[in-house]
Amino acid sequence: MKLLEDRIRTDGKVLPGDILKVDSFLNHQIDVKLLNEMGKEFYRLYKDQGVNKILTVEASGIAIASITAQYFDCNIVFAKKSKSSCVYENMYTASVASFTHKNVNDVIVSKYYISKDDRILIVDDFLALGNAIIGLSDIVSQAGATLVGCGIAVEKLYMGGGNMLRQKGIRVESLAKVSLMTDDGKIEFAD
Amino acid sequence: MKLLEDRIRTDGKVLPGDILKVDSFLNHQIDVKLLNEMGKEFYRLYKDQGVNKILTVEASGIAIASITAQYFDCNIVFAKKSKSSCVYENMYTASVASFTHKNVNDVIVSKYYISKDDRILIVDDFLALGNAIIGLSDIVSQAGATLVGCGIAVEKLYMGGGNMLRQKGIRVESLAKVSLMTDDGKIEFAD
Repeated sequence: MKLLEDRIRTDGKVLPGDILKVDSFLNHQIDVKLLNEMGKEFYRLYKDQGVNKILTVEASGIAIASITAQYFDCNIVFAKKSKSSCVYENMYTASVASFTHKNVNDVIVSKYYISKDDRILIVDDFLALGNAIIGLSDIVSQAGATLVGCGIAVEKLYMGGGNMLRQKGIRVESLAKVSLMTDDGKIEFAD
Repeated sequence: MKLLEDRIRTDGKVLPGDILKVDSFLNHQIDVKLLNEMGKEFYRLYKDQGVNKILTVEASGIAIASITAQYFDCNIVFAKKSKSSCVYENMYTASVASFTHKNVNDVIVSKYYISKDDRILIVDDFLALGNAIIGLSDIVSQAGATLVGCGIAVEKLYMGGGNMLRQKGIRVESLAKVSLMTDDGKIEFAD
């Protein structure tokens, strides 16, 4: 999606440690007009798939998921993060290692809000190693629901998470696929 | 707002410990159509105030803020929570005690995303003691920006936070004002 790639080139910042900072428009300050264009694109890609629920994880996935849900005319559910390894009542649970924050969280979703009849689109802002998506798709499986696919804003293609998911048979559509990023600020996108 | 009050009566759950659980439609699963009606109402209330930015705090304020921002045609900024009392570079910081979670977080906002020219509407899902709003309004002050007011989904009127803010001269508009809530599940709203 050229609009997003252009915005990353203009306003994104590459920081040492393989960090792509997009917090001026995507995950701290949020350009809701841009999110609307992204939501439209996810809808174009998945509109024939009978999506009836969008699943994301707090916090930075919530805005994209909410705006996108308007196009699918459906609810969203956001998985909550919990530091503790508690046993939760009536919750689906999965462990997710964070590349950015260098820690492991449980992500939890109430059993009341995903059911076997749901056809779920997972939406998130970033895909690097794919750990968050693996955790969310595990929760979809636990619920016996159908995972239609994933809609990702920015995929770090060179980190392999997206292709690992694709090899598992999960459909992954990313609006900007970063193929190269260097500490001196260079960034390239795959087609 | 009758639509929200009715929804709380139908799908909300009062739990012991003064907890109003609305996670089937407001802050875990999210009914985006309902949020759109809430966003329209916030716009009706504040449309003449020159709002150019909506400020909220992660995680559950993000969805309402994002949907509402579409009516104001503006960006949102969400304050991030941080457990640690670090000194942050280029960040406005305020401490916020959470009624629900019984802990204290720093909330932080990048200095790049709020400026003295901003006219800010704070949006959040709940208002109880008002600590989150005090923290966010402190950040607005630090930035030298103008706080136009607050748009709250559910105010626990009897806890006094809303009226404390109003007495400070902050405009607070709440779409559902809970005046009474009892452990046996009874709930009443003020006009």
